[in-house]
Amino acid sequence: MNPDLSIESVRQAQQLIRPYVLQTPLVFSEKLSERYGMNFAFKAENLQHIGAFKARGATNAVLALTPEQASAGVVTHSSGNHAAALARAARIRSIPAYIVMPHNSAQTKIASVLSFGFQPHFCEPSAPARAAACDQLMHQTGATLVHPYNDTKVICGQGTTGLEIVEQWSQVDVVLAPVGGGGLISGLLIALKAINSKIQIIAVEPEQADDASRSLQSGKIEQPTRYDTVADGLRTCLGELTFEVMQDLLDQIVLVSDTEILTAMRELAQDARLVVEPSGAVSFAGAKKISQQLAGKNVCAVLSGGNLDFGKCQLGAKPN
Amino acid sequence: MNPDLSIESVRQAQQLIRPYVLQTPLVFSEKLSERYGMNFAFKAENLQHIGAFKARGATNAVLALTPEQASAGVVTHSSGNHAAALARAARIRSIPAYIVMPHNSAQTKIASVLSFGFQPHFCEPSAPARAAACDQLMHQTGATLVHPYNDTKVICGQGTTGLEIVEQWSQVDVVLAPVGGGGLISGLLIALKAINSKIQIIAVEPEQADDASRSLQSGKIEQPTRYDTVADGLRTCLGELTFEVMQDLLDQIVLVSDTEILTAMRELAQDARLVVEPSGAVSFAGAKKISQQLAGKNVCAVLSGGNLDFGKCQLGAKPN
Repeated sequence: MNPDLSIESVRQAQQLIRPYVLQTPLVFSEKLSERYGMNFAFKAENLQHIGAFKARGATNAVLALTPEQASAGVVTHSSGNHAAALARAARIRSIPAYIVMPHNSAQTKIASVLSFGFQPHFCEPSAPARAAACDQLMHQTGATLVHPYNDTKVICGQGTTGLEIVEQWSQVDVVLAPVGGGGLISGLLIALKAINSKIQIIAVEPEQADDASRSLQSGKIEQPTRYDTVADGLRTCLGELTFEVMQDLLDQIVLVSDTEILTAMRELAQDARLVVEPSGAVSFAGAKKISQQLAGKNVCAVLSGGNLDFGKCQLGAKPN
Repeated sequence: MNPDLSIESVRQAQQLIRPYVLQTPLVFSEKLSERYGMNFAFKAENLQHIGAFKARGATNAVLALTPEQASAGVVTHSSGNHAAALARAARIRSIPAYIVMPHNSAQTKIASVLSFGFQPHFCEPSAPARAAACDQLMHQTGATLVHPYNDTKVICGQGTTGLEIVEQWSQVDVVLAPVGGGGLISGLLIALKAINSKIQIIAVEPEQADDASRSLQSGKIEQPTRYDTVADGLRTCLGELTFEVMQDLLDQIVLVSDTEILTAMRELAQDARLVVEPSGAVSFAGAKKISQQLAGKNVCAVLSGGNLDFGKCQLGAKPN
């Protein structure tokens, strides 16, 4: 595994970003614990700055730049939350940020980038189009690429979520997290498996974006075949770094349907009183799906983000 | 002031109820702080067991009963959250609970009482009708009345919210909380003014249930003139105990309209990612209303509850 992906690097990231990110609460739910027969707590990264765990990795990457690198700015592509996270981190360090976003990104995520003073550069919603737009900006400006997940600093920043989980709940048995590009889950794996290898780490992925499951089966990084899951934050393929960590350390991967994701999202709003975006409900949907396997255990589901597009998504309405 | 209403009694309550209630998180919001020019944190009692601070007072009252009192059970009337809180506390101690609720109580609140194994006794939605139904049950069963707010044990239980606020944020300047019967605000006053008399405590009340404001002006407890504010948890008048504490210690009271309450509720869902019921948004609505007065200060708004009736209230929709 890449030597920059270690528990020491995650601890360094925690020191570096501490003044700029929240230690998000672990929210225990008596009601959902009774309903599903396990002890549920939610790591509420929907309550993080910019409404997602992505603030951690982007802040770590920006603060780790040399002064020379920093002066030329940073560039990235993202369907949304990493975009806002990098814009915020760039504003903290007062450097330029060039943000490529698919034109079908959620309005709230576009507005968030704008709120930090940066105009997104829009592109087609495919991996090749995003990478091409990013390359062009990088060559024009000399800015440093901060990839949304295939970056050691980003992965170690996301891993600080794992350090907090065990600080807050030393008795945790199982941690579930969504997988898109794999930055969050590989950060969790690096942090948690080093601290306590008995903690079971489970990735959860939308059926309509099952590239990570197929990659783990085939042994090479597979591409998504469609880009239409309601969990818009998880429409990307794995990176080389994140795939390697997952191959080495991941215990299990679970698939959930879009209907299961939307039902979980509404259940979290009504019964845990937490607003999450569809991607943010994926881990809870996965825990429900394997509730028999998890019976009686101390289960932490990471709610990755809360930037729900209220114009499109009525929380009070029934799933279609 | 009643000798049982003291900081020592609040600290005793904290010891007694600690195993049964959550220390709820203080949720900081960078976005809303920038928007309104103050440092905002929310005391998220919507994340408390049964979804409201009421779990604190009811649990304290039930645990403080003598074994003889406990065996005959408890009785109360409540528009909802105290009902669920007392039902839960009675289940913890395995004693009977007789719960009187107005027939127009929110469906989620009725369901919550049922979930703890107790069938509510329904009555007309007026103060006299509630008291009468309660009296009758008390005389039939010998159960102890646990009034939703005019009870020293209940008030001291609610006051534990204040202890946690200063533990979590020693630099807090201002605390805002909703006022219905006054249990929460008087508990906060007893706890916080004893710890640091410079902390400013502001009550916030719906314009359509302005009996507390009128009571403070006239010097006697005034009755509500209507029972239709969207903040259904705040449709009650003050009690003698809570009124006396407010007269002695309250710094200010602010009125907000139902439209302001609903706007605040939607803003909390979208931008702070927290689901609150209308009563739970009242303190934030009040802070917005006096944002010039609060400029630059460390402001804690207590989000009192999160039991939103999703069937009636579309979080994504615009206010009427």
